[in-house]
Amino acid sequence: MPESAPPPYQIQTQSQDHDSLTLTLPLLSHSHRQRSINSTSQVAIVGANACPIESLDYEIAENDFFKQDWRTRGKIQIFQYIFMKWLLCFLIGGFVSLVGFFNNLAVETIAGVKFAVTSNMMLDRRHGMAFLVFSVSNLLLTLFAVIITAFISPAAAGSGIPEVKAYLNGVDAPDIFSPRTLMVKIVGSISAVSSSLVVGKAGPMVHIGSCIASLFGQGGSRKYGLTWKWLRFFKNDRDRRDLVTCGSAAGIAAAFRAPVGGVLFALEEMASWWRSALLWRAFFTTAVVAIILRALIDVCFSGKCGLFGKGGLIMFDAYSANISYHLADVPPVLVLGVIGGIIGSLYNFLLIRVLRVYNFIYEKGIIYQIFIACTISIFTSFLLFGLPWLASCQPCPSDAPEACPTIGRSGNYKRFQCPPGHYNDLASIIFNTNDDAIRNLFSKDAKSEFQLSTMLIFFVTCFILSILSYGIVAPAGLFVPVIVTGASYGRFVGILLGSHTNLSHSLYAVLGAASFLGGSMRMTVSLCVIILELTNNLLLLPLIMIVLLISKTVADAFNGNIYDHIMAVKGFPYLETHAEPYMRQMTVADVVSGPLQLCHGIEKVGNIVHILKTTRHHGFPVIDASPDSESSVLYGLILRAHLIALLRKKAFLSTPMRLGVDDAFRHFSEDDFAKRGLGNVDKIEDIELTDEEMEMFLDLHPFTNASPYTVVESMSLAKALVLFREVGLRHLLIIPKISSRAPVVGILTRHDFMPEHILGGGGGLIQLLHMGLTLETETAKTDPAPAG
Amino acid sequence: MPESAPPPYQIQTQSQDHDSLTLTLPLLSHSHRQRSINSTSQVAIVGANACPIESLDYEIAENDFFKQDWRTRGKIQIFQYIFMKWLLCFLIGGFVSLVGFFNNLAVETIAGVKFAVTSNMMLDRRHGMAFLVFSVSNLLLTLFAVIITAFISPAAAGSGIPEVKAYLNGVDAPDIFSPRTLMVKIVGSISAVSSSLVVGKAGPMVHIGSCIASLFGQGGSRKYGLTWKWLRFFKNDRDRRDLVTCGSAAGIAAAFRAPVGGVLFALEEMASWWRSALLWRAFFTTAVVAIILRALIDVCFSGKCGLFGKGGLIMFDAYSANISYHLADVPPVLVLGVIGGIIGSLYNFLLIRVLRVYNFIYEKGIIYQIFIACTISIFTSFLLFGLPWLASCQPCPSDAPEACPTIGRSGNYKRFQCPPGHYNDLASIIFNTNDDAIRNLFSKDAKSEFQLSTMLIFFVTCFILSILSYGIVAPAGLFVPVIVTGASYGRFVGILLGSHTNLSHSLYAVLGAASFLGGSMRMTVSLCVIILELTNNLLLLPLIMIVLLISKTVADAFNGNIYDHIMAVKGFPYLETHAEPYMRQMTVADVVSGPLQLCHGIEKVGNIVHILKTTRHHGFPVIDASPDSESSVLYGLILRAHLIALLRKKAFLSTPMRLGVDDAFRHFSEDDFAKRGLGNVDKIEDIELTDEEMEMFLDLHPFTNASPYTVVESMSLAKALVLFREVGLRHLLIIPKISSRAPVVGILTRHDFMPEHILGGGGGLIQLLHMGLTLETETAKTDPAPAG
Repeated sequence: MPESAPPPYQIQTQSQDHDSLTLTLPLLSHSHRQRSINSTSQVAIVGANACPIESLDYEIAENDFFKQDWRTRGKIQIFQYIFMKWLLCFLIGGFVSLVGFFNNLAVETIAGVKFAVTSNMMLDRRHGMAFLVFSVSNLLLTLFAVIITAFISPAAAGSGIPEVKAYLNGVDAPDIFSPRTLMVKIVGSISAVSSSLVVGKAGPMVHIGSCIASLFGQGGSRKYGLTWKWLRFFKNDRDRRDLVTCGSAAGIAAAFRAPVGGVLFALEEMASWWRSALLWRAFFTTAVVAIILRALIDVCFSGKCGLFGKGGLIMFDAYSANISYHLADVPPVLVLGVIGGIIGSLYNFLLIRVLRVYNFIYEKGIIYQIFIACTISIFTSFLLFGLPWLASCQPCPSDAPEACPTIGRSGNYKRFQCPPGHYNDLASIIFNTNDDAIRNLFSKDAKSEFQLSTMLIFFVTCFILSILSYGIVAPAGLFVPVIVTGASYGRFVGILLGSHTNLSHSLYAVLGAASFLGGSMRMTVSLCVIILELTNNLLLLPLIMIVLLISKTVADAFNGNIYDHIMAVKGFPYLETHAEPYMRQMTVADVVSGPLQLCHGIEKVGNIVHILKTTRHHGFPVIDASPDSESSVLYGLILRAHLIALLRKKAFLSTPMRLGVDDAFRHFSEDDFAKRGLGNVDKIEDIELTDEEMEMFLDLHPFTNASPYTVVESMSLAKALVLFREVGLRHLLIIPKISSRAPVVGILTRHDFMPEHILGGGGGLIQLLHMGLTLETETAKTDPAPAG
Repeated sequence: MPESAPPPYQIQTQSQDHDSLTLTLPLLSHSHRQRSINSTSQVAIVGANACPIESLDYEIAENDFFKQDWRTRGKIQIFQYIFMKWLLCFLIGGFVSLVGFFNNLAVETIAGVKFAVTSNMMLDRRHGMAFLVFSVSNLLLTLFAVIITAFISPAAAGSGIPEVKAYLNGVDAPDIFSPRTLMVKIVGSISAVSSSLVVGKAGPMVHIGSCIASLFGQGGSRKYGLTWKWLRFFKNDRDRRDLVTCGSAAGIAAAFRAPVGGVLFALEEMASWWRSALLWRAFFTTAVVAIILRALIDVCFSGKCGLFGKGGLIMFDAYSANISYHLADVPPVLVLGVIGGIIGSLYNFLLIRVLRVYNFIYEKGIIYQIFIACTISIFTSFLLFGLPWLASCQPCPSDAPEACPTIGRSGNYKRFQCPPGHYNDLASIIFNTNDDAIRNLFSKDAKSEFQLSTMLIFFVTCFILSILSYGIVAPAGLFVPVIVTGASYGRFVGILLGSHTNLSHSLYAVLGAASFLGGSMRMTVSLCVIILELTNNLLLLPLIMIVLLISKTVADAFNGNIYDHIMAVKGFPYLETHAEPYMRQMTVADVVSGPLQLCHGIEKVGNIVHILKTTRHHGFPVIDASPDSESSVLYGLILRAHLIALLRKKAFLSTPMRLGVDDAFRHFSEDDFAKRGLGNVDKIEDIELTDEEMEMFLDLHPFTNASPYTVVESMSLAKALVLFREVGLRHLLIIPKISSRAPVVGILTRHDFMPEHILGGGGGLIQLLHMGLTLETETAKTDPAPAG
């Protein structure tokens, strides 16, 4: 017996008699508790509230039971699986496009009525009354969105993109894809966007798409007995991940009517794992979205959609015959890119600061959440209604393409307080929906339409309001605010350059939006395609590429992607693809921590219960006594969920003996081990066992993953990360270099690769930081986490 | 000592005295030779000739020497690396766009002169002379292309996409990226395309882009002392792979002026490994291409490019104001997709059959290669010149957008044999360059421009000629032939439907090209974007998506992607992402074969030489005697290339002792272990050692990868494939389940995952096939391989 095992790895093995395990089981010492909990479970802010999160597991659990189940699958099951994959994608595309359409229709109708009523009052010179109606309706809409979010589903707050991105990276959180969240997200997003807050609908659409995908994959609610047998193949993390990826692509496709952009967005920004087959399915999903949306818009063009009409589904159409540009036009575009990068990174910086403050305040209670939202709504109403008074009235152009000034409805030339025959250019964009503002900014019409001061006021207002509004406890996206802010800044630059450039002001608006998107969101190909699909002009391509490349490069010098920052603030342990340089200097043995809990191949029920109750680990190595030597042998890894499933069935053995696979099949069905959503998992505390049962035995062999991935303890952390990340593991077993020692040294989980865990792992590691390596997320995470 | 090791694994370990190794070393028994060679080295047809191929290795080789080298890298080195990455991408983009531009210019000039001369002769009614000039010039151009390819660089034959795709999957072949191949590919492609053969230039452009990328990464030629110190970080397979991926994206971007399409093509079709950072670099590369091409075209529009003018760089511009289509237009589009899928898969089927026949004939000698090319050239000339006589002359439309009939140059309305005021519509497309034919077919002009019979003749001609022409021993792409064939079929359907459809004939041509591309190449997003960028009309998007989805789905029911088939015919061991179902039923122990060669940590030089000479393996497990037991311990894996580097330096030890890392650094530099191109590797036969040296020792420890990836022998092949493929391994060590046996059971390489290897691995496996699972590649591979 190697009693001389080095101190950091407090493993006990070789306990030939099973009873001794309870005695030698190392209880978590106080000093270890914090880290031990950290490494298996953690808390993150999901939406608005802190929740426990859990890792997903993409490993093929190869135990005898599953292998047998797999062998019994015939051609029909394989056909069912393939058929369902495509059917689900079709259904996801269909539902997401319907929701997207309905969403736009509702926003246009609600906001349209609101602006029509206030505009008519303005025409009658009842300015005070108009403001009252405007601000009260905004306040009520905001209040409604906040109250349903805070009380019914806090997970629906925010854009949801960070949560979905974290899910696709392998971090599950309860309730992010529940039906309740879906409903709140849809209704809340409509009401928040209609309330004239500077928030977007694209982010919520991504979350809605993912929700729909996840719910379809789950096959209805278990509670209401709506599960379908054909869906049983989707009850694992891998297939669910693929569905959610397709759903997020469909969300962007529906929000911007950009099917190719949606696929690329899912690929570039959302997905952490991707394969060619998934590309095709995502493409199919967004194609369904595109086709259904086109058909619905056809209906609307014939005037059957009320106030909806041309608006709503963004299709900015900045096309102006043949845009011609030459090398001389490149320098201003470069400048635009640089400035976009700088203000984009500044935007990220400020947004994160504001989010921190909000999170700090939100901890104090729901009333504070409502208070902040109301304050922002009132502040927004004041600005939107008050600022146009600063702008001077413009005479209507004689060749205006539409009625000028606009009467009654939300058009391009708002009269606001102006005398007849004049319009207020600031009101045209600020006292309007964001969609209409973008359309006006991108419009190819006369250069003189907007004044320089108007653009400046609008840019500053949008910049500030969008930063303040994103953090409210309601569904709120970032895309549209960033586009509208960027477009105003771009047009500002265009007006400033005046006759020094050949490019039109509308093109500057498009490029400004591109540069600000690039500076804040840091995507490249997907943003490029989304902007092309929005503006419907492929000739812009080289210019948009230049702007995006420059703004991303400049902004990357200051800070990271906005969604990554938000994830860090929320506390999601996001696993990067690339290893930090210091990870090459450390071995896996350096980071693995805490005492290890082991099971024996044939284990006493009482011991299993004890292990499950005293730890929060989700995987346990299973060891067997070696037949020909005194050392023990690693048999495999068993999951907590499977242990609980075994305990629930209570098919215990009275004597310690090996169970055949056929016996296992008699007692259990594949459905018992199906992966459930995070909210529905059974807890060990719910299982009641008699003292007699506690003395019985379980043969874990048929249910143990007999070929877990293992790495040797001397492997560098960077190299282990490659395996962990590329294959998508939840547990990675570490085996000793010298085989005569205990068969397993420890288990690596996601948290062991997190910089803050590595840095907390011992004073000796701090010195690595003196190598001048920055750990960006570290500062983000050491802030006080909100109470769970 | 476990002398009772099971028979299949003939490992000898525990030889405490090093001399005994040579005695107990198992020589390759005759029955094992074939399979043993198969599993470490293989032959594939690269371009036109069979060459030995080798696997690439993307694993981080973590030996003490590299670790030490890595530790010494400071911030300056990291900066150098990042700076070089971007500089190289910039250079790749710049050179590829220049080559693409030059390529088009040359083709347009040569073909333009040829058509101008023959057209003028036709005007003078000297028809016989015209045919003679036409056919002889075609023959000479073809002959030139074939001769330089066959004699100078056979690797330049064909499109090169299968070779590049195989390289990006991890299969290296000599000469595919050599400067010689690059030159032959450029010159040969120009001359083959100019010779009126139905071959494309896009495929060769992809190969050219990859070549340029690889050469830049290599940093010039070692032979001429042109290597640059800053490039030393790129001397590994991972960085070279990234560069080649960017190069292939740049190739498509330059061929079609489709920067986003190029990135997506590289992502969807070419790359086997992909990460977000690479997306950005590929995007940067294609942005450089797009910007430089635009600048060069600006120059050409001002008329400084001779016959080039508007032509050449395809920019088909099928835009016709506002295309409006409704649900009623969808059924014909569906039909188009279905037919496109069927003829696409038929095309693949026939092309593969023809390629097989060609490969069989080509084995007989270069003279046969030249003969086939000449035959096809003469046949093509006959068809192109003869078929237009079948078409009736059309009166020129009164509102023709250009001169009708065209005089002298290659225009839309060829007069051919027609009387003045008339044109020959078949000659306009068939007696023309492929680019002009596509432009004419996509053109938005009058519906009456082409007759039904013309389209049918043209379609059949292109279909047959493109199948026959692809296999010639000269650079020849598939994209343009497929587009031109598909467009003619699409326009045929459009004419056939007549007034039953609202869509224009040009739109049918575009959709036909899309459906045929989808049916043959089976890409989705990338084809969609390439077609959009070609036609410059985003409104087509939903229709193109429908067509592509349908044609791919239909065609997938019959056979696979054309490039995958070509790779199979050529014999490249392409590693798929997904595991075949039968792989879940087998363990890795089932497929691992042959006796295993082991090295000891401190090994005699003579033994190393013997192992290297008697085997063709590229990695050897290194074992150490365990200090505290009689069993031995796996220390790691050493690569053949590193062993040869050690032997070359002759820094041997006179006694068996451990070497410190510092000693290792004194004798060796990182450059000694830099990965070289396949053509430049040293061979063990080239190293001369005295008998005295053969008796000395080498300490392998500092150079051994001490943490290779390992899997347990009971893991299923499917699960091992996930690790092997996702991480990109060359060697995967299999360790025994019971630790007291020998420390390593075998090594898995790429060939062990190939269906034909698995099926040849034992009679017991054949029964798996009776489960009804098809092995598509099996039939493709069991054909007689050409002699090396």
